[in-house]
Amino acid sequence: MRLLPEPTTRLAAESVYEDIPFPKADPAARRPYVAINMVSSLDGKAAMGGKAGAIGSPADRILMRTLRARADAVMIGAGTLRAEKLTLAVPEILARARKALGLRPQPLSVVATATGDLPLQTNLLGPPSENLLVLIPPGIPEERLATLSSKAKTEIVAQRKPTNQGGLVQTGTEPLLDLSEALWTLKRRYAVDVLLVEGGPALNHALISSGLADELFLTLAPKLLGGSRPEALTILEGPAVPPGKTAPELISLHLFDDELFLRYALHPQRGV
Amino acid sequence: MRLLPEPTTRLAAESVYEDIPFPKADPAARRPYVAINMVSSLDGKAAMGGKAGAIGSPADRILMRTLRARADAVMIGAGTLRAEKLTLAVPEILARARKALGLRPQPLSVVATATGDLPLQTNLLGPPSENLLVLIPPGIPEERLATLSSKAKTEIVAQRKPTNQGGLVQTGTEPLLDLSEALWTLKRRYAVDVLLVEGGPALNHALISSGLADELFLTLAPKLLGGSRPEALTILEGPAVPPGKTAPELISLHLFDDELFLRYALHPQRGV
Repeated sequence: MRLLPEPTTRLAAESVYEDIPFPKADPAARRPYVAINMVSSLDGKAAMGGKAGAIGSPADRILMRTLRARADAVMIGAGTLRAEKLTLAVPEILARARKALGLRPQPLSVVATATGDLPLQTNLLGPPSENLLVLIPPGIPEERLATLSSKAKTEIVAQRKPTNQGGLVQTGTEPLLDLSEALWTLKRRYAVDVLLVEGGPALNHALISSGLADELFLTLAPKLLGGSRPEALTILEGPAVPPGKTAPELISLHLFDDELFLRYALHPQRGV
Repeated sequence: MRLLPEPTTRLAAESVYEDIPFPKADPAARRPYVAINMVSSLDGKAAMGGKAGAIGSPADRILMRTLRARADAVMIGAGTLRAEKLTLAVPEILARARKALGLRPQPLSVVATATGDLPLQTNLLGPPSENLLVLIPPGIPEERLATLSSKAKTEIVAQRKPTNQGGLVQTGTEPLLDLSEALWTLKRRYAVDVLLVEGGPALNHALISSGLADELFLTLAPKLLGGSRPEALTILEGPAVPPGKTAPELISLHLFDDELFLRYALHPQRGV
Protein backbone atom coordinates (compact mmCIF):
# COMPACT_ATOMS: atom_id res chain seq x y z
CA MET A 1 0.00 0.00 0.00
CA ARG A 2 1.41 3.36 -1.01
CA LEU A 3 0.60 6.06 1.56
CA LEU A 4 2.82 8.73 0.04
CA PRO A 5 2.65 10.34 -2.42
CA GLU A 6 -1.09 10.60 -1.96
CA PRO A 7 -3.63 9.33 -2.69
CA THR A 8 -3.35 6.01 -0.84
CA THR A 9 -3.03 3.28 -3.46
CA ARG A 10 -2.92 -0.47 -3.29
CA LEU A 11 -0.08 -1.95 -5.35
CA ALA A 12 1.50 -5.32 -6.03
CA ALA A 13 4.87 -5.57 -4.24
CA GLU A 14 6.49 -5.93 -7.65
CA SER A 15 5.23 -2.48 -8.66
CA VAL A 16 6.66 -0.59 -5.70
CA TYR A 17 9.66 1.56 -6.64
CA GLU A 18 8.88 1.08 -10.29
CA ASP A 19 6.57 4.06 -10.16
CA ILE A 20 8.78 6.99 -9.18
CA PRO A 21 11.75 7.60 -11.47
CA PHE A 22 15.28 8.42 -10.43
CA PRO A 23 16.23 11.92 -11.50
CA LYS A 24 17.99 12.10 -14.85
CA ALA A 25 21.75 11.76 -14.52
CA ASP A 26 23.55 15.11 -14.54
CA PRO A 27 26.05 14.83 -17.42
CA ALA A 28 28.31 17.39 -15.74
CA ALA A 29 28.51 15.49 -12.45
CA ARG A 30 31.74 13.64 -11.69
CA ARG A 31 29.80 10.74 -10.21
CA PRO A 32 26.66 8.62 -10.71
CA TYR A 33 23.37 9.29 -8.97
CA VAL A 34 23.83 7.33 -5.72
CA ALA A 35 21.00 5.61 -3.83
CA ILE A 36 21.57 3.62 -0.65
CA ASN A 37 19.19 0.78 0.22
CA MET A 38 19.13 -0.56 3.80
CA VAL A 39 16.83 -2.40 6.16
CA SER A 40 16.66 -1.66 9.86
CA SER A 41 14.69 -2.85 12.88
CA LEU A 42 12.64 -0.36 14.93
CA ASP A 43 15.60 -0.09 17.28
CA GLY A 44 17.94 0.84 14.46
CA LYS A 45 19.73 -2.47 14.01
CA ALA A 46 20.77 -3.09 10.40
CA ALA A 47 22.85 -6.21 10.96
CA MET A 48 22.99 -8.93 13.57
CA GLY A 49 26.30 -10.78 13.66
CA GLY A 50 27.22 -8.81 10.53
CA LYS A 51 24.24 -10.20 8.61
CA ALA A 52 21.35 -8.11 7.34
CA GLY A 53 19.63 -10.95 5.53
CA ALA A 54 17.18 -12.00 8.22
CA ILE A 55 15.91 -8.53 9.19
CA GLY A 56 13.71 -7.72 6.19
CA SER A 57 10.70 -9.68 4.95
CA PRO A 58 10.21 -11.36 1.57
CA ALA A 59 8.53 -8.11 0.44
CA ASP A 60 11.73 -6.24 1.33
CA ARG A 61 13.72 -8.62 -0.82
CA ILE A 62 11.35 -8.05 -3.75
CA LEU A 63 11.86 -4.30 -3.44
CA MET A 64 15.62 -4.77 -3.16
CA ARG A 65 15.57 -6.58 -6.51
CA THR A 66 13.34 -3.94 -8.10
CA LEU A 67 15.84 -1.28 -7.09
CA ARG A 68 18.75 -3.33 -8.41
CA ALA A 69 16.93 -3.74 -11.70
CA ARG A 70 16.80 0.05 -12.03
CA ALA A 71 20.52 0.57 -11.37
CA ASP A 72 23.48 0.41 -13.70
CA ALA A 73 25.61 -1.01 -10.91
CA VAL A 74 25.14 -2.36 -7.38
CA MET A 75 27.92 -1.72 -4.87
CA ILE A 76 28.76 -3.08 -1.42
CA GLY A 77 31.67 -2.62 0.95
CA ALA A 78 34.16 -5.37 1.67
CA GLY A 79 32.99 -5.87 5.26
CA THR A 80 29.50 -6.76 4.08
CA LEU A 81 30.87 -9.36 1.71
CA ARG A 82 33.10 -10.81 4.41
CA ALA A 83 30.09 -11.11 6.76
CA GLU A 84 27.79 -13.22 4.62
CA LYS A 85 27.18 -15.03 1.36
CA LEU A 86 25.23 -12.82 -1.02
CA THR A 87 24.47 -11.93 -4.59
CA LEU A 88 24.06 -8.51 -6.19
CA ALA A 89 22.23 -9.89 -9.22
CA VAL A 90 18.59 -9.62 -10.29
CA PRO A 91 16.35 -12.62 -11.03
CA GLU A 92 16.05 -13.83 -14.61
CA ILE A 93 12.67 -12.17 -15.19
CA LEU A 94 14.10 -8.75 -14.33
CA ALA A 95 17.22 -9.44 -16.36
CA ARG A 96 15.02 -10.08 -19.41
CA ALA A 97 13.07 -6.86 -18.76
CA ARG A 98 16.35 -4.92 -18.59
CA LYS A 99 17.53 -6.49 -21.83
CA ALA A 100 14.28 -5.47 -23.53
CA LEU A 101 15.03 -1.88 -22.48
CA GLY A 102 18.47 -2.05 -24.05
CA LEU A 103 20.30 -2.35 -20.73
CA ARG A 104 22.83 -4.98 -19.82
CA PRO A 105 20.83 -7.88 -18.33
CA GLN A 106 22.58 -7.70 -14.96
CA PRO A 107 23.73 -4.52 -13.24
CA LEU A 108 27.48 -4.41 -12.72
CA SER A 109 28.41 -5.95 -9.34
CA VAL A 110 30.89 -3.67 -7.55
CA VAL A 111 32.82 -4.29 -4.35
CA ALA A 112 34.68 -1.41 -2.70
CA THR A 113 37.64 -2.50 -0.60
CA ALA A 114 40.53 -0.77 1.07
CA THR A 115 42.64 -3.90 1.53
CA GLY A 116 41.69 -6.34 -1.21
CA ASP A 117 40.80 -8.90 1.45
CA LEU A 118 37.70 -10.26 -0.26
CA PRO A 119 36.17 -13.76 -0.18
CA LEU A 120 34.87 -13.40 -3.75
CA GLN A 121 34.96 -17.11 -4.42
CA THR A 122 33.03 -18.21 -1.37
CA ASN A 123 30.71 -15.30 -0.55
CA LEU A 124 29.76 -13.55 -3.80
CA LEU A 125 27.33 -15.69 -5.69
CA GLY A 126 26.62 -15.16 -9.31
CA PRO A 127 28.54 -12.69 -11.37
CA PRO A 128 30.93 -13.92 -14.01
CA SER A 129 34.26 -12.08 -13.76
CA GLU A 130 33.36 -9.73 -16.63
CA ASN A 131 30.39 -8.39 -14.65
CA LEU A 132 32.24 -8.01 -11.35
CA LEU A 133 34.37 -4.98 -10.54
CA VAL A 134 36.58 -4.53 -7.50
CA LEU A 135 37.59 -0.99 -6.56
CA ILE A 136 40.87 -0.88 -4.62
CA PRO A 137 43.34 1.78 -3.52
CA PRO A 138 46.96 1.78 -4.73
CA GLY A 139 49.49 -0.25 -2.78
CA ILE A 140 47.68 -3.59 -2.51
CA PRO A 141 50.27 -6.43 -2.48
CA GLU A 142 50.89 -7.85 -5.99
CA GLU A 143 49.87 -11.35 -5.06
CA ARG A 144 46.52 -10.28 -3.65
CA LEU A 145 45.89 -8.13 -6.71
CA ALA A 146 46.63 -11.08 -8.96
CA THR A 147 44.14 -13.25 -7.08
CA LEU A 148 41.43 -10.59 -7.41
CA SER A 149 42.20 -10.03 -11.09
CA SER A 150 41.66 -13.71 -11.81
CA LYS A 151 38.07 -13.43 -10.60
CA ALA A 152 37.03 -9.86 -11.38
CA LYS A 153 37.86 -6.70 -13.19
CA THR A 154 39.91 -4.48 -10.89
CA GLU A 155 40.31 -0.72 -10.83
CA ILE A 156 43.04 0.88 -8.78
CA VAL A 157 41.60 4.17 -7.57
CA ALA A 158 44.21 6.87 -7.08
CA GLN A 159 43.78 8.90 -3.93
CA ARG A 160 43.20 12.52 -4.68
CA LYS A 161 43.02 13.81 -1.12
CA PRO A 162 44.81 12.08 1.75
CA THR A 163 42.03 12.92 4.21
CA ASN A 164 38.84 11.37 5.52
CA GLN A 165 36.90 13.43 2.99
CA GLY A 166 35.58 10.99 0.43
CA GLY A 167 37.43 8.17 2.11
CA LEU A 168 36.12 4.75 2.93
CA VAL A 169 36.58 4.60 6.67
CA GLN A 170 36.54 0.98 7.73
CA THR A 171 35.56 0.10 11.26
CA GLY A 172 39.02 -1.29 11.91
CA THR A 173 42.35 0.12 10.90
CA GLU A 174 42.19 -0.36 7.14
CA PRO A 175 43.56 2.35 4.87
CA LEU A 176 41.31 4.52 2.78
CA LEU A 177 39.69 4.21 -0.59
CA ASP A 178 38.94 7.59 -2.15
CA LEU A 179 35.21 7.18 -2.75
CA SER A 180 34.88 10.37 -4.72
CA GLU A 181 37.45 9.09 -7.22
CA ALA A 182 35.92 5.61 -7.11
CA LEU A 183 32.52 7.00 -8.12
CA TRP A 184 34.13 9.01 -10.90
CA THR A 185 35.81 5.84 -12.16
CA LEU A 186 32.42 4.08 -12.22
CA LYS A 187 30.88 6.85 -14.26
CA ARG A 188 33.79 7.55 -16.60
CA ARG A 189 34.98 4.01 -17.33
CA TYR A 190 31.81 1.95 -16.81
CA ALA A 191 29.04 4.34 -17.83
CA VAL A 192 27.34 4.01 -14.45
CA ASP A 193 24.70 6.75 -14.19
CA VAL A 194 22.67 5.19 -11.37
CA LEU A 195 24.50 3.39 -8.56
CA LEU A 196 22.70 1.41 -5.88
CA VAL A 197 24.66 0.93 -2.65
CA GLU A 198 23.64 -1.88 -0.28
CA GLY A 199 25.92 -1.07 2.65
CA GLY A 200 27.53 -1.89 4.85
CA PRO A 201 27.31 0.75 7.55
CA ALA A 202 30.93 1.91 7.13
CA LEU A 203 30.52 2.47 3.38
CA ASN A 204 27.18 4.24 3.92
CA HIS A 205 28.79 6.45 6.53
CA ALA A 206 31.69 7.41 4.29
CA LEU A 207 29.37 8.27 1.40
CA ILE A 208 26.95 10.30 3.50
CA SER A 209 29.67 12.14 5.43
CA SER A 210 31.26 13.09 2.13
CA GLY A 211 28.03 14.34 0.55
CA LEU A 212 28.13 11.58 -2.06
CA ALA A 213 24.73 9.92 -1.52
CA ASP A 214 21.55 11.28 -3.11
CA GLU A 215 18.89 8.97 -1.72
CA LEU A 216 18.20 6.54 1.06
CA PHE A 217 15.73 3.68 0.71
CA LEU A 218 15.05 2.56 4.27
CA THR A 219 12.96 -0.46 5.14
CA LEU A 220 11.76 -0.30 8.73
CA ALA A 221 11.08 -3.86 9.83
CA PRO A 222 8.57 -4.31 12.69
CA LYS A 223 11.13 -5.92 15.01
CA LEU A 224 12.97 -5.07 18.19
CA LEU A 225 16.33 -6.81 18.09
CA GLY A 226 18.56 -5.31 20.77
CA GLY A 227 22.22 -6.20 20.64
CA SER A 228 25.30 -4.00 20.65
CA ARG A 229 28.34 -3.26 18.53
CA PRO A 230 30.13 -5.05 17.01
CA GLU A 231 27.49 -7.77 17.02
CA ALA A 232 24.69 -5.37 16.05
CA LEU A 233 25.26 -2.42 13.72
CA THR A 234 23.11 0.53 12.70
CA ILE A 235 22.81 1.62 9.07
CA LEU A 236 25.52 4.23 9.68
CA GLU A 237 28.66 3.32 11.63
CA GLY A 238 31.32 5.94 12.13
CA PRO A 239 31.85 9.27 13.87
CA ALA A 240 29.04 11.80 14.22
CA VAL A 241 28.04 13.16 10.79
CA PRO A 242 28.80 16.89 10.67
CA PRO A 243 25.57 18.92 10.77
CA GLY A 244 24.22 20.03 7.41
CA LYS A 245 25.69 17.16 5.37
CA THR A 246 22.20 15.92 4.52
CA ALA A 247 18.65 17.24 4.76
CA PRO A 248 16.53 14.10 4.33
CA GLU A 249 13.14 14.64 2.70
CA LEU A 250 10.56 11.86 2.66
CA ILE A 251 9.53 11.32 -0.95
CA SER A 252 7.56 8.10 -0.72
CA LEU A 253 6.18 5.73 1.88
CA HIS A 254 4.81 2.24 1.34
CA LEU A 255 3.43 -0.19 3.87
CA PHE A 256 3.10 -3.95 3.74
CA ASP A 257 2.32 -6.17 6.74
CA ASP A 258 3.53 -3.62 9.34
CA GLU A 259 6.80 -3.10 7.46
CA LEU A 260 7.46 0.43 6.20
CA PHE A 261 9.33 1.20 3.00
CA LEU A 262 10.67 4.75 3.16
CA ARG A 263 12.39 6.69 0.43
CA TYR A 264 14.31 9.85 1.32
CA ALA A 265 16.02 12.40 -0.90
CA LEU A 266 19.16 13.30 1.05
CA HIS A 267 20.06 16.64 -0.57
CA PRO A 268 23.77 16.04 0.10
CA GLN A 269 26.25 18.82 0.74
CA ARG A 270 29.86 18.33 -0.26
CA GLY A 271 32.82 20.24 1.13
CA VAL A 272 33.57 20.87 4.77
CA MET B 1 -1.28 14.36 8.66
CA ARG B 2 -2.57 10.96 9.72
CA LEU B 3 -1.85 8.29 7.10
CA LEU B 4 -2.94 5.35 9.26
CA PRO B 5 -5.54 4.40 10.21
CA GLU B 6 -7.08 5.41 6.90
CA PRO B 7 -8.44 7.59 5.50
CA THR B 8 -5.67 10.18 5.30
CA THR B 9 -6.67 13.07 7.55
CA ARG B 10 -5.16 16.45 8.27
CA LEU B 11 -4.93 17.20 11.99
CA ALA B 12 -3.54 19.86 14.28
CA ALA B 13 -0.40 18.57 16.01
CA GLU B 14 -2.21 18.98 19.31
CA SER B 15 -4.84 16.45 18.22
CA VAL B 16 -2.41 13.66 17.34
CA TYR B 17 -2.47 10.81 19.88
CA GLU B 18 -5.64 12.23 21.40
CA ASP B 19 -7.68 10.28 18.91
CA ILE B 20 -6.83 6.62 19.57
CA PRO B 21 -7.43 5.47 23.14
CA PHE B 22 -5.19 3.28 25.21
CA PRO B 23 -6.82 -0.07 25.92
CA LYS B 24 -8.72 -0.22 29.17
CA ALA B 25 -6.52 -1.28 32.09
CA ASP B 26 -6.84 -4.96 32.93
CA PRO B 27 -7.86 -5.02 36.62
CA ALA B 28 -6.31 -8.48 37.01
CA ALA B 29 -2.91 -7.43 35.68
CA ARG B 30 -0.08 -7.02 38.17
CA ARG B 31 1.18 -3.95 36.32
CA PRO B 32 -0.01 -0.83 34.48
CA TYR B 33 -0.43 -0.63 30.73
CA VAL B 34 3.08 0.39 29.64
CA ALA B 35 3.82 2.59 26.61
CA ILE B 36 7.35 3.61 25.65
CA ASN B 37 7.90 6.89 23.78
CA MET B 38 11.20 7.46 21.97
CA VAL B 39 12.63 9.51 19.14
CA SER B 40 15.26 8.18 16.77
CA SER B 41 17.13 9.39 13.70
CA LEU B 42 16.92 7.43 10.42
CA ASP B 43 20.15 5.70 11.41
CA GLY B 44 18.68 4.56 14.71
CA LYS B 45 20.35 7.06 17.03
CA ALA B 46 18.17 7.96 20.02
CA ALA B 47 20.71 9.99 21.95
CA MET B 48 23.83 11.94 21.12
CA GLY B 49 26.15 12.47 24.04
CA GLY B 50 23.41 10.95 26.19
CA LYS B 51 20.92 13.63 25.15
CA ALA B 52 17.76 12.94 23.15
CA GLY B 53 16.48 16.51 23.35
CA ALA B 54 17.81 17.78 20.05
CA ILE B 55 16.75 14.86 17.83
CA GLY B 56 13.00 15.48 17.62
CA SER B 57 11.24 18.55 16.28
CA PRO B 58 8.88 20.93 18.10
CA ALA B 59 6.03 18.73 16.79
CA ASP B 60 7.63 15.73 18.50
CA ARG B 61 7.71 17.62 21.76
CA ILE B 62 4.03 18.50 21.40
CA LEU B 63 3.21 14.81 20.93
CA MET B 64 5.40 13.87 23.88
CA ARG B 65 3.34 16.18 26.07
CA THR B 66 0.05 14.84 24.68
CA LEU B 67 1.14 11.33 25.63
CA ARG B 68 2.19 12.47 29.09
CA ALA B 69 -1.18 14.10 29.55
CA ARG B 70 -2.83 10.72 28.94
CA ALA B 71 -0.68 8.82 31.43
CA ASP B 72 -1.07 8.38 35.17
CA ALA B 73 2.71 8.40 35.56
CA VAL B 74 5.78 9.14 33.44
CA MET B 75 8.92 7.11 34.15
CA ILE B 76 12.57 7.41 33.11
CA GLY B 77 15.71 5.53 34.03
CA ALA B 78 18.46 7.03 36.12
CA GLY B 79 20.95 7.21 33.23
CA THR B 80 18.62 9.47 31.27
CA LEU B 81 18.29 11.83 34.22
CA ARG B 82 22.06 11.88 34.75
CA ALA B 83 22.58 12.75 31.06
CA GLU B 84 20.50 15.89 30.81
CA LYS B 85 18.22 18.39 32.52
CA LEU B 86 14.60 17.50 31.88
CA THR B 87 11.05 17.63 33.12
CA LEU B 88 8.37 14.95 33.06
CA ALA B 89 5.54 17.41 33.57
CA VAL B 90 2.84 18.63 31.20
CA PRO B 91 2.20 22.29 30.37
CA GLU B 92 -0.39 24.21 32.37
CA ILE B 93 -3.08 23.97 29.69
CA LEU B 94 -2.89 20.17 29.71
CA ALA B 95 -2.76 20.10 33.49
CA ARG B 96 -6.04 22.04 33.55
CA ALA B 97 -7.61 19.66 31.04
CA ARG B 98 -6.57 16.70 33.21
CA LYS B 99 -8.05 18.35 36.27
CA ALA B 100 -11.34 18.88 34.44
CA LEU B 101 -11.40 15.12 33.78
CA GLY B 102 -10.95 14.38 37.47
CA LEU B 103 -7.28 13.36 37.11
CA ARG B 104 -4.41 14.72 39.12
CA PRO B 105 -3.16 17.81 37.20
CA GLN B 106 0.32 16.37 36.69
CA PRO B 107 1.16 12.72 36.03
CA LEU B 108 3.35 11.22 38.72
CA SER B 109 7.05 11.65 37.86
CA VAL B 110 8.88 8.36 38.40
CA VAL B 111 12.60 7.66 38.27
CA ALA B 112 13.83 4.05 38.28
CA THR B 113 17.31 3.62 39.67
CA ALA B 114 19.45 0.70 40.71
CA THR B 115 21.94 2.75 42.74
CA GLY B 116 20.13 5.85 43.97
CA ASP B 117 22.75 8.01 42.26
CA LEU B 118 20.34 10.67 40.99
CA PRO B 119 20.89 14.38 40.38
CA LEU B 120 17.27 15.19 41.28
CA GLN B 121 18.07 18.69 42.43
CA THR B 122 19.97 19.80 39.35
CA ASN B 123 18.47 17.77 36.49
CA LEU B 124 14.80 17.12 37.23
CA LEU B 125 12.86 20.30 36.74
CA GLY B 126 9.42 20.73 38.10
CA PRO B 127 7.85 18.18 40.36
CA PRO B 128 7.29 18.99 44.01
CA SER B 129 8.47 16.11 46.19
CA GLU B 130 4.93 14.81 46.66
CA ASN B 131 4.60 14.23 42.90
CA LEU B 132 8.01 12.60 42.46
CA LEU B 133 8.62 8.92 43.13
CA VAL B 134 11.97 7.17 43.11
CA LEU B 135 11.98 3.37 42.72
CA ILE B 136 15.07 1.77 44.24
CA PRO B 137 16.23 -1.73 45.09
CA PRO B 138 17.01 -2.76 48.68
CA GLY B 139 20.50 -2.17 49.97
CA ILE B 140 21.03 1.49 49.01
CA PRO B 141 23.30 3.19 51.60
CA GLU B 142 21.30 4.94 54.36
CA GLU B 143 22.78 8.34 53.65
CA ARG B 144 21.90 8.25 49.98
CA LEU B 145 18.39 7.10 50.81
CA ALA B 146 17.98 9.98 53.23
CA THR B 147 19.05 12.47 50.57
CA LEU B 148 16.54 11.02 48.09
CA SER B 149 13.76 10.95 50.68
CA SER B 150 14.20 14.65 51.36
CA LYS B 151 13.34 15.42 47.72
CA ALA B 152 10.97 12.66 46.66
CA LYS B 153 8.81 9.81 47.76
CA THR B 154 10.83 6.61 47.69
CA GLU B 155 9.76 3.01 47.27
CA ILE B 156 12.17 0.20 48.00
CA VAL B 157 11.28 -2.54 45.54
CA ALA B 158 11.99 -6.01 46.87
CA GLN B 159 13.63 -8.33 44.37
CA ARG B 160 11.46 -11.31 43.64
CA LYS B 161 13.77 -13.14 41.27
CA PRO B 162 17.53 -12.70 41.38
CA THR B 163 17.87 -13.00 37.59
CA ASN B 164 17.90 -10.73 34.59
CA GLN B 165 14.20 -11.47 34.11
CA GLY B 166 12.38 -8.27 34.91
CA GLY B 167 15.60 -6.64 35.97
CA LEU B 168 16.79 -3.18 35.10
CA VAL B 169 20.09 -3.90 33.40
CA GLN B 170 22.18 -0.76 33.46
CA THR B 171 24.83 -0.25 30.81
CA GLY B 172 27.54 -0.34 33.44
CA THR B 173 27.87 -2.63 36.40
CA GLU B 174 24.97 -1.42 38.49
CA PRO B 175 22.86 -3.94 40.39
CA LEU B 176 19.33 -4.75 39.36
CA LEU B 177 15.96 -3.25 40.04
CA ASP B 178 13.16 -5.79 39.68
CA LEU B 179 11.00 -4.00 37.12
CA SER B 180 8.16 -6.43 37.37
CA GLU B 181 7.86 -5.67 41.08
CA ALA B 182 8.42 -1.98 40.44
CA LEU B 183 5.47 -1.88 38.04
CA TRP B 184 3.31 -3.75 40.53
CA THR B 185 4.22 -1.18 43.17
CA LEU B 186 3.15 1.62 40.82
CA LYS B 187 -0.21 0.01 40.22
CA ARG B 188 -0.91 -1.17 43.75
CA ARG B 189 0.31 1.77 45.77
CA TYR B 190 -0.06 4.68 43.33
CA ALA B 191 -3.07 3.64 41.22
CA VAL B 192 -1.07 3.88 38.01
CA ASP B 193 -3.09 2.23 35.23
CA VAL B 194 -1.25 3.82 32.29
CA LEU B 195 2.50 4.31 32.53
CA LEU B 196 4.47 6.24 29.92
CA VAL B 197 8.19 5.40 29.77
CA GLU B 198 10.56 7.87 28.13
CA GLY B 199 13.75 5.79 28.16
CA GLY B 200 16.59 5.55 28.33
CA PRO B 201 17.71 2.68 26.14
CA ALA B 202 18.71 0.42 29.07
CA LEU B 203 15.31 0.78 30.76
CA ASN B 204 13.52 0.22 27.45
CA HIS B 205 15.61 -2.87 26.84
CA ALA B 206 14.89 -4.33 30.25
CA LEU B 207 11.13 -3.74 29.87
CA ILE B 208 10.94 -5.18 26.37
CA SER B 209 13.17 -8.18 27.10
CA SER B 210 10.95 -8.99 30.07
CA GLY B 211 7.69 -8.70 28.14
CA LEU B 212 6.60 -5.70 30.21
CA ALA B 213 5.97 -3.10 27.48
CA ASP B 214 2.68 -2.94 25.58
CA GLU B 215 3.33 -0.16 23.09
CA LEU B 216 6.09 1.79 21.42
CA PHE B 217 5.60 5.33 20.18
CA LEU B 218 8.52 5.93 17.84
CA THR B 219 9.26 9.27 16.24
CA LEU B 220 11.50 8.86 13.22
CA ALA B 221 13.31 12.16 12.72
CA PRO B 222 14.54 12.90 9.18
CA LYS B 223 18.19 13.06 10.23
CA LEU B 224 21.34 11.01 9.73
CA LEU B 225 23.49 11.47 12.81
CA GLY B 226 26.20 8.80 12.80
CA GLY B 227 28.17 8.37 15.98
CA SER B 228 28.89 5.26 18.03
CA ARG B 229 28.42 3.93 21.53
CA PRO B 230 28.70 5.22 24.15
CA GLU B 231 28.38 8.63 22.55
CA ALA B 232 25.41 7.61 20.40
CA LEU B 233 22.77 5.15 21.61
CA THR B 234 19.88 3.38 19.91
CA ILE B 235 16.44 3.17 21.52
CA LEU B 236 17.33 -0.29 22.87
CA GLU B 237 20.73 -0.92 24.45
CA GLY B 238 21.51 -4.35 25.80
CA PRO B 239 21.98 -7.92 24.60
CA ALA B 240 20.02 -9.34 21.69
CA VAL B 241 16.32 -9.57 22.57
CA PRO B 242 15.27 -13.24 22.54
CA PRO B 243 13.08 -13.99 19.51
CA GLY B 244 9.34 -13.90 20.12
CA LYS B 245 9.44 -11.40 22.98
CA THR B 246 7.49 -8.87 20.92
CA ALA B 247 5.51 -8.89 17.67
CA PRO B 248 5.22 -5.19 16.80
CA GLU B 249 2.09 -4.18 14.91
CA LEU B 250 1.80 -0.72 13.38
CA ILE B 251 -1.41 0.83 14.70
CA SER B 252 -1.05 4.41 13.60
CA LEU B 253 1.21 6.57 11.46
CA HIS B 254 1.35 10.35 11.34
CA LEU B 255 3.55 12.60 9.26
CA PHE B 256 4.60 16.21 9.77
CA ASP B 257 7.41 17.92 7.87
CA ASP B 258 9.19 14.67 6.89
CA GLU B 259 9.07 13.42 10.48
CA LEU B 260 7.15 10.17 11.06
CA PHE B 261 5.21 9.42 14.21
CA LEU B 262 4.74 5.68 14.52
CA ARG B 263 2.70 3.80 17.08
CA TYR B 264 3.24 0.07 17.53
CA ALA B 265 1.40 -2.45 19.68
CA LEU B 266 4.16 -4.75 20.92
CA HIS B 267 2.12 -7.83 21.94
CA PRO B 268 4.65 -8.69 24.63
CA GLN B 269 5.38 -12.23 25.74
CA ARG B 270 6.47 -12.86 29.30
CA GLY B 271 8.43 -15.84 30.55
CA VAL B 272 11.40 -17.48 28.88
